[in-house]
Formats: sequence, structure tokens, C-alpha cells
Amino acid sequence: MLFFDKFFNPESIAVVGASRTPGKLGYIILENLKSSFNGEIYPINPHALKILGLESYTSILDVEETIDHAVIVVPAEIVVKVIKEGIKKKIKAFTIISSGFSEIGEKERELELKELSKNKKIRIIGPNCIGIYKKDLDMIFFSKKRLKRPPEGFISFITQSGAFGSILLDIMANEGVGVSKFISIGNKVDVNEIELIEYLGKDLSTRCIALYIESVKNGQGFIKTAKKVTKTKPIVAFKAGKTEKGMEAVTSHTGSLAGSAQVYSAAFKQAGIIEAKSSEEIFDYAKVLANMPVLKNKKIAIVTDGGGFGIVATDAAVKCGLELPTLDNSSIKSLKSFLPSYASTKNPIDITGDATDERYKKTLEVVLKDKNIAGVVCIALMQIPTLTDGIIDVLKDCKVFGKPITVCSAGSQYVLDRNKRLERFGIPVYPTPERAVKALAILYEYGKVLKRK
Amino acid sequence: MLFFDKFFNPESIAVVGASRTPGKLGYIILENLKSSFNGEIYPINPHALKILGLESYTSILDVEETIDHAVIVVPAEIVVKVIKEGIKKKIKAFTIISSGFSEIGEKERELELKELSKNKKIRIIGPNCIGIYKKDLDMIFFSKKRLKRPPEGFISFITQSGAFGSILLDIMANEGVGVSKFISIGNKVDVNEIELIEYLGKDLSTRCIALYIESVKNGQGFIKTAKKVTKTKPIVAFKAGKTEKGMEAVTSHTGSLAGSAQVYSAAFKQAGIIEAKSSEEIFDYAKVLANMPVLKNKKIAIVTDGGGFGIVATDAAVKCGLELPTLDNSSIKSLKSFLPSYASTKNPIDITGDATDERYKKTLEVVLKDKNIAGVVCIALMQIPTLTDGIIDVLKDCKVFGKPITVCSAGSQYVLDRNKRLERFGIPVYPTPERAVKALAILYEYGKVLKRK
Repeated sequence: MLFFDKFFNPESIAVVGASRTPGKLGYIILENLKSSFNGEIYPINPHALKILGLESYTSILDVEETIDHAVIVVPAEIVVKVIKEGIKKKIKAFTIISSGFSEIGEKERELELKELSKNKKIRIIGPNCIGIYKKDLDMIFFSKKRLKRPPEGFISFITQSGAFGSILLDIMANEGVGVSKFISIGNKVDVNEIELIEYLGKDLSTRCIALYIESVKNGQGFIKTAKKVTKTKPIVAFKAGKTEKGMEAVTSHTGSLAGSAQVYSAAFKQAGIIEAKSSEEIFDYAKVLANMPVLKNKKIAIVTDGGGFGIVATDAAVKCGLELPTLDNSSIKSLKSFLPSYASTKNPIDITGDATDERYKKTLEVVLKDKNIAGVVCIALMQIPTLTDGIIDVLKDCKVFGKPITVCSAGSQYVLDRNKRLERFGIPVYPTPERAVKALAILYEYGKVLKRK
Repeated sequence: MLFFDKFFNPESIAVVGASRTPGKLGYIILENLKSSFNGEIYPINPHALKILGLESYTSILDVEETIDHAVIVVPAEIVVKVIKEGIKKKIKAFTIISSGFSEIGEKERELELKELSKNKKIRIIGPNCIGIYKKDLDMIFFSKKRLKRPPEGFISFITQSGAFGSILLDIMANEGVGVSKFISIGNKVDVNEIELIEYLGKDLSTRCIALYIESVKNGQGFIKTAKKVTKTKPIVAFKAGKTEKGMEAVTSHTGSLAGSAQVYSAAFKQAGIIEAKSSEEIFDYAKVLANMPVLKNKKIAIVTDGGGFGIVATDAAVKCGLELPTLDNSSIKSLKSFLPSYASTKNPIDITGDATDERYKKTLEVVLKDKNIAGVVCIALMQIPTLTDGIIDVLKDCKVFGKPITVCSAGSQYVLDRNKRLERFGIPVYPTPERAVKALAILYEYGKVLKRK
């Protein structure tokens, strides 16, 4: 565990391969670290005196102060030399961004790294990764002009693909969904998903672990650790390379858990991991699992201001195995007391296209208090003229009832701005009724995991 | 057909129920028409002299000039009276926005309308709809501040749900996807989807018809007409209310084609209609069908600058029944001549995270000229530092090869702005590899429809 603190909460970082040339990875990483990290930063570059205003060093060994974490972005050929110098300098944590290892067939070079980390006196993340991202530790080699950073939140993400991970960060930023820790593990020469799952399982600022994997080397260890963690914290995983052709595209790893979709699905199930069946689902599920309580039973209500979307949501709920019970008599009575005569108090509850913030508020209160209802999918077409920004407060305040709620809201900038505010309050928003329903259903699946002995 | 010209290309329009009060439907419709429509507009309101600078009339009968099309937004109780006046005034086309008919159980009131339109001397769209939208005929009752309008393009959309339709317009606007004609048909007292499909089938500016339906009254007629149209023009349809519970939420219509998912799927198949199985798919498929040629066989290539996304796309392709053949020897030789050694010329073709516009250009040219390859899914993570705006030209220029291409590109504003430009050039862009692959696969499905006798 101590090792991971060096990675995630270092007091000093060396950037080995820092560059003076804007656009180069060693420049962007330094720039991003400088604008996020509060500790000491030591750029290492034999040809520079200063980079981005920071004193630069010829080698790690020239730095007198302690270095907690070294980020390495030099050409693959000299990575081993740098690690050896780092060991002399008593650095414990290395993140190797550099590519040019087993992913291009350079297995010998990777074995040398493996050898260096074998006794676990040092730990290595990577190589061939994009590093770690936390709000106060941004070492991602994408410029913020092109790839936005998400706000602080409760999802931690472990990814074997840097590209997949970076795009997810960008999408989260765009939608206002919060991230706690993001770790790109690349070729996993040393640190792997198992140890990180264990670490994040105990991390108080992580409420959901999301995982993109192409291969797992130690299948049994993976299941054992995940099984322990999912007893208290949800894990959602997406496995890429499920088909034979897809597996061919994944560099094969000896001793990997066999690659078929069935084997992974079974392993996920055994471990209590929620499986994302598409790259869309990993994001859809992570944000609801990180922010909402479980759905205690299958009985949900749908509240909508658009009839069509209500029907689509109903179809989706049935397909997910959810039920739409009739509300309690007293609830119906209560709804009828303030809803217009043309609204429908059946479930789906259609409060119609002239619904106001107040009508949503009263309806959601009745529905969320109803003992027959365990959770709600709320469809709010915010474009309608009768809604104001008050709808944001109405939806965020639903959290007090202790039941899960997902929101369907889609459109252009006017709507997207409001959706972003909802996400910042921890209300998961989806662009289609189907996705909002499936997200709620996943909370029932995770509830079943929690009930296991 | 002449009737539909009155609807879509009128020279004059009366807005019956025009309002002076900002925010009211009769105000917004007039405002939107005024800013889009080039012909004469006659606001009808017994209590106003002028509205939005236009001379207002007490009744349709007070207008001396010819009225081609009347948009009606008065309370339901007086709609019949207005239609009768319209008939006296020899108006042929009526669009009834007003709600308060069969959807709230007022069947008698709707029957009166039906009776009036029975001999087809007048035609009615609606009631309970949001009307027609064309770039030069905007009668949607949503303010442009809240709901953006898409650019002109090739998709025409017929929708039974106004809310569903309006949100689709907003999403299309947000992504830069073009619309030709949008028709909300509401309760379909007279004009229904069959006649509109026939009309749009002959409409030169429509290249794909998208259909959201909850019920079809004349199943055989629907199949017959759609079968004819799909021989030359793709139709994509989404049926809501497929489950029993979903059907309950749809107001039932006597004589409807039976509601089960199976029956509709079979009917769609028979008619050569591409079925969207989710609300996401209708949009995903419409934009590719409107802009790309068919995929002549199942052999596709994937080109990517991100390994992970390439694997995900490969899995998705296999699941869709597509094949990823090895390229022709000469193509591989050609690719190897300019790609770096660490790139992969296997299919998926990974041109890696330092790909430039030029590398994409050369690769796509080789791949699209390869006789083994019928179409391409191109994954472009535009956030990488080595790509410039030149990638937009590279992708749009792919059209000259006459083979279909779909693009996967996702992220925040930087990326979304570029995606929008691609869509304006008719290149369909998707936020996940799976959706880009499925869209390409749908072009193979439509190719099969075209090959039918």
C-alpha cells in the first residue's frame, strides 16, 4: 500500500525526458503536472537548464532532494538505464509512459524491466501507458486544449488502453462526471489491475471502480480480489478482445485467463463484477454506481413529460426485467389532487408536455415516498417552455428519499448545460430512455451482489 | 400529391390561434414561421390588430387573399369550427397542433374531424402534433433558444411522438446532421405515415426516411407502400410500445397492426425496412443511410490510431457478421512503405497514436482502393497532438472512392466541433466503435434489400 501512496500522493516528481519543445510529450506532461501538482517537480533533460521556468537536471542522480515518483518519457532504449539510476537514487515509484516494448515485439526489453521490479523494492506502472490522472496529479500527455479534464468525483478508472481511457476522461469532462483516480496500466510489467483494485477498494474517495481490460494474467487472483472488493464497492468491467478476431488484435500474453467472452463473463459474475457489454455501458454504469444507492427490488416508476419517451422507457424496463407496479391508492389520490385531468397516473406516469418544475417536484415526492416503488427513471424534456432551471434543484433534491433515480434528458447546448449541472450534483443523466432504464437496472444487479454471503 | 405540396411548399399560411404573449405556443409558432417562411403569413386572433408586426385577422374568413395552409393552435373545443371556416375559405391543408382529442379520450371530437376530411377535399395533419419543420417552414412550437434547428440535409423524419421528434431535431442540430422534412403526425386523423412515405419516396431532397411509430392502422397498406419505396430509398423505423406494458402506454387504436415486437419486426422485414431496435439506432442508422452508398459485401477494414478502440471495433464487427479480411499483398506492401515499423498492417490496421493527417490519408487511400475491402470504419482520436484540422479534409475526401465509411470520434468540445464539420460534409460520426461498426453493417443490410427482386 505504501508504494501506491508514492504513486498517487507523492511529494516530489521527476519528469525524465522533459522537453522544451511545445507539443512533445515530455513538454505536455511537464506543463500539465506544473499546473496541477503542488509538490516539487524536477525536469530531467541533459540539454536544458530550465524548462517551463523549472530548473532542469542532466540526470536523476543530480537531484539532491528526495524523489518520490519518476515519470519516464524517454526513448524505449534508455528506459532501463533510467530505472537503474532511479534505483540508485532510492526512487520507489516509476511510471513509464514510453512505448516500444512487448506491444511491438520487444519482449527482451520488457523482461529487463520485469527483472528490475521483481523483488518489489521498486514498483512500475506501464510501460506504454498514459500514466495517472488525479485532479492534483495530471501527467496525461494530452494538451488540455484538446482533451478536457473531468471534475473531482467518485469514479476510479483502471485502463489497459490509454486511448480508451483518455477518451473516457474527455467525455466525463464534457458531461461533468467526476473522477477520483485514473490509472493507465499499459503493458503491466509490474503493477496490475489486481493490486489497483485492492488499493482502490480501500480508497475513501473511490465509490466505483471501472475497468477496461484486454487480458488478465492471474485469473484466480483477479477473481479473489474483486470478490472481496465488490462486497462493499461496485466494480464495472469491460473486456475488449472477446471474439477470436478481436483476441488476435490483442497482443497475446502467456498465462492469460482464456480469452473467450464466456470465460470472462463467468469470471466477472463469480467476482460480483458488473459487466459492461459495450464501451457505452462502462461509462453509463460507472456513473450511476458511483452516485446512487442500490435498487432494492425490481419495482420502479417512470415519470415523464413526453408520452413517446415514456413508452420507450416502459419497453426498456420490461426488457431489463424491471416491473412497473401500480402506485399505492393514496399516492394516486395525491397525484390526482394536483395533476391536470389529461395527465396519466398510471405507471409510466405522464405529467405531459406542459409540466412545470413544481409538478415534477410534487410528483417525484409522491412517487419516491410510495412503498411500492424502489426507484425512478425520470424523463425530463427540458426544452419545453414550462420548465425553468428550477428543475435542476427538483431532481437533485430527490436524493433525500434514499432511493435511486436516473434521468433521461437529451438535446443541444441548452439541455446539455443543464445535464452537466445535474451530473455535478451526482445525478446520472442519459440521452435515451433505454440507457436511463438500464442504468437503474444495474443498481438492482449490484444490490444482488451485496446480498451474497 | 398536390395536397402535400400545399403542406410543404405553401405560398401563404394562416396561424389560427396566433398569440401576442411571448412563451405561448401561438406566439412561438408565429415567431418561428416569421423567421423561416418567405410567403405570406396571416395571424388569426380576434383580439389583436397586429402580432409580431403582422396584421392580424379576426377569422380566416376575413383574409381576402388565398391561404394554402392553416396551422391551428386554438383550444380543442373550437378546432372543428375553425376547420369548417377553412373549408369555406377553400383552404386545402390543415395542420392541427391543438391537443385534447382521442389521446385524452375525446373520441367524438376526433371523429368530427375525421368526418370533415373523409372525402379528401381537405387534408389534415394531426391533431396533437408539433407540425412540420423544413428549413423554410418552421412551425415547431419550441423556442430556438431551447431547441436548436438542424441544417438542411437528406433525412426526412415522420414521427408519431412530438417529443421524440423534437428531441431528435435538437440532437441533429447539435451534431450538425441535416434534415430535409420533419413531420409530426400526432393522432393521424387523416394524413398517416403511409401517404407520407409515398410522398417522401418521390421527394428528391429526401435520401432516407426515418419513422417513429407507436401503431399502424393499415398494416397491409403500410407494407405495400414501404416495399415499393425501399426499392430505391432506405427507410429506418423504430416501433415503440413493443412489450405488453409498453402497448398499454400507447392509446390503443382499433384495427391496428397487432402490437407485438415480432409482428412489427416481420412486417418491417417484409417491407425492406431497416429496423432500429433502440431510440439511439434510429438516429445512428438514418444518418449513415442518408449519406453513404451501400456496403456491397461483408468485407470491411478498420483503421485506427488507438489500439483499444481497434479491438473493440473488431469485436463489434464480428458480432455484426462482418469480416475483416487481410488486405491485398500489394496494399500491404504499399502500407509498409510509409507506415512506421511499429504500426500494424493487419486488419484492424493500427496506424498508432502518433498518426498524422498524411498517414491517415495515405492509409485510407490504399485501403479504400483495395479490391478485398468494401467499406471502412475509421477511428480517429482527434485529441492526439499529431493530428490537425487536415484530418477533416482527409475523411471527407474518402467519399470519392465510392465505398462507405463511418467514423468513430468522441470527446469534448474540441472533438465535437470537428465531428460537426464532418457531419456537415455527410460523413457519419459515432461516439463509440460499436456504433460506428453497426452503422456500416446496416449499409450491408440495406444492400440486401436493394438486391431483392
